[in-house]
Amino acid sequence: MDLLKQTIGRIEGLDLEMMDMAQSRVDSLIKPPHSLGRLEDLAVQLAGIYGELYPVVDQKAIVVMAADHGVYEEGVSSNPQEVTFAQTMFIAKGITGVGVLAKPAGAKIVTVDIGVKGDFPSDAGVIDRKIKQGAGNIATGPAMTIEEAIGSLEVGIEIAEAEIRNGARILGTGEMGIGNTTPSTAILSVLGDIPPEEITGNGAGVGNGGISHKVRVIKTAIEVNNPDKRDAIDVLAKVGGLEIGGMAGVMIGAAANRVPVVLDGYISTIAALLAVAIEPKVKDYLIPSHASAEPGGKRASELLGIRPLLHMDMCLGEGSGAALAFPLVEAACNMMREMATFSEVGLEI
Amino acid sequence: MDLLKQTIGRIEGLDLEMMDMAQSRVDSLIKPPHSLGRLEDLAVQLAGIYGELYPVVDQKAIVVMAADHGVYEEGVSSNPQEVTFAQTMFIAKGITGVGVLAKPAGAKIVTVDIGVKGDFPSDAGVIDRKIKQGAGNIATGPAMTIEEAIGSLEVGIEIAEAEIRNGARILGTGEMGIGNTTPSTAILSVLGDIPPEEITGNGAGVGNGGISHKVRVIKTAIEVNNPDKRDAIDVLAKVGGLEIGGMAGVMIGAAANRVPVVLDGYISTIAALLAVAIEPKVKDYLIPSHASAEPGGKRASELLGIRPLLHMDMCLGEGSGAALAFPLVEAACNMMREMATFSEVGLEI
Repeated sequence: MDLLKQTIGRIEGLDLEMMDMAQSRVDSLIKPPHSLGRLEDLAVQLAGIYGELYPVVDQKAIVVMAADHGVYEEGVSSNPQEVTFAQTMFIAKGITGVGVLAKPAGAKIVTVDIGVKGDFPSDAGVIDRKIKQGAGNIATGPAMTIEEAIGSLEVGIEIAEAEIRNGARILGTGEMGIGNTTPSTAILSVLGDIPPEEITGNGAGVGNGGISHKVRVIKTAIEVNNPDKRDAIDVLAKVGGLEIGGMAGVMIGAAANRVPVVLDGYISTIAALLAVAIEPKVKDYLIPSHASAEPGGKRASELLGIRPLLHMDMCLGEGSGAALAFPLVEAACNMMREMATFSEVGLEI
Repeated sequence: MDLLKQTIGRIEGLDLEMMDMAQSRVDSLIKPPHSLGRLEDLAVQLAGIYGELYPVVDQKAIVVMAADHGVYEEGVSSNPQEVTFAQTMFIAKGITGVGVLAKPAGAKIVTVDIGVKGDFPSDAGVIDRKIKQGAGNIATGPAMTIEEAIGSLEVGIEIAEAEIRNGARILGTGEMGIGNTTPSTAILSVLGDIPPEEITGNGAGVGNGGISHKVRVIKTAIEVNNPDKRDAIDVLAKVGGLEIGGMAGVMIGAAANRVPVVLDGYISTIAALLAVAIEPKVKDYLIPSHASAEPGGKRASELLGIRPLLHMDMCLGEGSGAALAFPLVEAACNMMREMATFSEVGLEI
């Protein structure tokens, strides 16, 4: 708990003076006002995060948090639960979706076992930060204790800080966990006061009972656990998941170190809702990526107050959408650094 | 006319057999079905265009067509007309929006004077294919003759073919032309049967008369010229512009050579509407980029039947949005080439 408290205490607001300078520079570039739209907004946000007018975002890392879910037993997913273990191995090898998309973007993948069922070989390239062998079944009890929830946040903080110490200038979040749209939707339902039937989707493949069964399981989970919506850590512990806590922790850790975090899709956005509920200043450090094809994705983005940059109809997770947004961040930096100003070219518009 | 006719005659449909093979490969990759969404669709489209399963899209060029507009005299823009000339020089130097965004994407800029008022120094890096010193004032007569319209399309074809001969594997379209949202909106109004008041926006800055004056000018242009909506070349000649014809020509030339073209925003999409009206098969070779912030942009995309990938609130033109979409095309290629299949990893889902 000390690490979480201390880290939250270190999170500062953006550098408003630098943002004013950045806005002035953006407005001086040879283009009609705001014609580069959200690229301009990104450049100003980055200036506020880094406290630099011309940041260089070279070293990038996507942290993929992997964990299992006891609620799998309720038949909410059509995939075998072992896929979490297998796919986490493949993610660490770089041969999955996030790996092949991160490579051209120049991003490293950091794969973390924060609660996968089963133990990875030591040479698998998976960082062992396992809190337990999967979250509890939220349809019958809490996903984890409050201590475990705080632990998951602290794992995220420590992983983020280790990468930043190694030189990462920007992080992305990703996850792997068969069944994890179920706790994510439960969290969204609680935090946003939204009936589960409005936001429950197929995930990576819904079980035999279909979406209506998944909705019932989510409703049961909320009834059984009765999470306190004003206490994000309680919500995480009762109806969340270990990798969701880990991702929220990455965001908190990055914000404390003035490093931006690129969100992925649905699960990332849910983790962001928790992180921002824990400390609202985290929001300033978040950069959206793609609009998830999962029905809850849109509501989660609206609740968080972000607008996705990319509309790719993707719903893979793993951080695959975050990988696609890195070039946009670099484009914003390039615009700031290399585009000419009206006074440089002697033009007035 | 011969070049245009011959080029159109060479345009073939996509390679359906290769697309089937690509779809099978996409479906065999270790991910839930269609979870990489439009990246998968892009990979299949590219296979159909190139007739290759694993295309390498390394050499890229953005063709920026520049021209002036006689309708500027009607006060439809708040910018000095000389900006077209000045900005075209800067585009060729690589210091404008498209230049700084194309550089990290590894794309070359090809700047073409197809009708700018004034003549460029020979060392400016601007290719001289001037048809005339700006289009005519469409509020009082046609933008150009039918021969000039065909000429503008043929310039586009020749520029595209020259770049493809030089090794370009993918093209993007861009433009520069103060006042060119006015003819673009006139074209959209005619082709889409949409009242100008529904689709007229600020462009890069509307003149003193505001949008209502711009709407009146567009209505007058359509009344005075009475273009035949079933004849795209007639529409281009009467209420279009030289750079719009040039961009449509680039698309036709690229399609004839089985090379994809990434659209930019509003003006590009209007040029695409013309190109597709001239030869519907061109559509298969087009790749969308961003959703223009210009109000007609959404209607133009719908009419063309494309959905933008990026939502950046941009409206700069120059090909700046096309530059941002190149990494997405490369991501689709990387997915195809490097992502593992279920059988390779011995997994069945």
